[in-house]
Amino acid sequence: MAEWWAVWRGDTAIEPARLDPADRGLAYGDGLFETMRASGGVLPWWPRHRARLLAGADRLAIPRPSDALLEAALDAAVRACPESVVKLVLTRGFGARGYAPPDDAVPTLIASAAPAPLAATGPITVDLLDLRLGLQPALVGLKHLNRLEQVLGAREAARRGLDDGLMADADGHVTCSTRANLFARIDGRWITPPVDRAGVAGIARGVLLDHWTPGGGLRVAPLPIAALARLEALVLVNAVRGILVAGRCGDRVLDLDPPGLDAARAALAASHPAFRED
Amino acid sequence: MAEWWAVWRGDTAIEPARLDPADRGLAYGDGLFETMRASGGVLPWWPRHRARLLAGADRLAIPRPSDALLEAALDAAVRACPESVVKLVLTRGFGARGYAPPDDAVPTLIASAAPAPLAATGPITVDLLDLRLGLQPALVGLKHLNRLEQVLGAREAARRGLDDGLMADADGHVTCSTRANLFARIDGRWITPPVDRAGVAGIARGVLLDHWTPGGGLRVAPLPIAALARLEALVLVNAVRGILVAGRCGDRVLDLDPPGLDAARAALAASHPAFRED
Repeated sequence: MAEWWAVWRGDTAIEPARLDPADRGLAYGDGLFETMRASGGVLPWWPRHRARLLAGADRLAIPRPSDALLEAALDAAVRACPESVVKLVLTRGFGARGYAPPDDAVPTLIASAAPAPLAATGPITVDLLDLRLGLQPALVGLKHLNRLEQVLGAREAARRGLDDGLMADADGHVTCSTRANLFARIDGRWITPPVDRAGVAGIARGVLLDHWTPGGGLRVAPLPIAALARLEALVLVNAVRGILVAGRCGDRVLDLDPPGLDAARAALAASHPAFRED
Repeated sequence: MAEWWAVWRGDTAIEPARLDPADRGLAYGDGLFETMRASGGVLPWWPRHRARLLAGADRLAIPRPSDALLEAALDAAVRACPESVVKLVLTRGFGARGYAPPDDAVPTLIASAAPAPLAATGPITVDLLDLRLGLQPALVGLKHLNRLEQVLGAREAARRGLDDGLMADADGHVTCSTRANLFARIDGRWITPPVDRAGVAGIARGVLLDHWTPGGGLRVAPLPIAALARLEALVLVNAVRGILVAGRCGDRVLDLDPPGLDAARAALAASHPAFRED
């Protein structure tokens, strides 16, 4: 539940904050979101979130919100909750009934802040889910509001007593978990699956790709389901939780302290104080 | 824009009507909807809509709303707008942040009514869209809130000057338009594509399958893209507009008065007064 929230239609704050029932974000999932970790009243990875949000808006042809509006929304959120998870939802707004986007769409921006989750827990247990990710090239990589696959995946994981579940796409490429990107150590090297066929281009994943240089290197490479049998270590990363280490993937017991993991943690912590462990 | 709307959390009316920004319908498209045509203050196809809504709730494990609640919501909607399009949205409600459905989810029901569209227009122009429908067996057939493919499809159709666009799935089976099911006449016989790989199990489609018996028969059969070159006639059907006849599909000029069309119109009109043309 949000501790604080606010809504804008175009550049105009809606007060008291309310959503129109005809908002296309609700009606069709016609929008995007970003979930960010605030620390000490700042959002260190905002430039990356902003870039993904605006790229998504361009892909969906939703008018870009101004930087002034985005910054006002974020300022208000972190003032209300300096240590929190801040969420921005950008929708195409409301308009005439029907799927076709109105020519004169005025986007809705919703900012909210909720308590930050507890610090990273101990090792987690994961397994490959039965649910597969469908392939939709028009939407791949975007953090859009059509997330029923993740909901069903998270439900399957909970039903099976897993902390999270690995999701393969329809062609059998392990792509992500229900809520994180993956870095897998196989044959003594780290890889992260591409997100060009399914999945979301995660922010923490981007930070690691830019700043983590483990011995043996780090490659973007497909992770076929069969390769899970050779998995040595697996870390799940997202922008809210940082790094979670998997202790088990199905029956396979994984290395909790694989080579390079400390450097990965340091790479995140160097750019975001919420992920410092001192 | 809705003329009238109301919101319930569980069985409790929320007054004044408002949506929580953490509602999973907005956050993840975690819900379902039904769009119905009211005529003379009644909703003749409600039993079919109800069956689809409740089957969808079961598939997504959203608690079923009671019949008493559903009927109270519909009564209020048609009292407010006797000739209208009535929409029900059922979401999993709100809960803790994250994709996993809360164990104690209390669903949100939103009812709204908007002016009915004009009566069926003249022949429409359609073509096959470039956008393909992804394949997701877990969601196929449901009228769920993840509708970005339809939004992008409708946008492509508008950009190309089409009245609507035909959508094939990733394997090249023409399945539906952005807002209707299809009945195609090919080689002198009518077929409608199955909706077991992509698409929505439409209500008007169900009425025709149950009550339309054109000469030469009506079969549920795949419609490969290549078969569009042999198309003789094409009708698009949904529960709001009834039957729309395509005059053109791409370069192909279609029969506006194919054998059986009058019987299809009569089959819809026999069960729903909004589709009587006298």
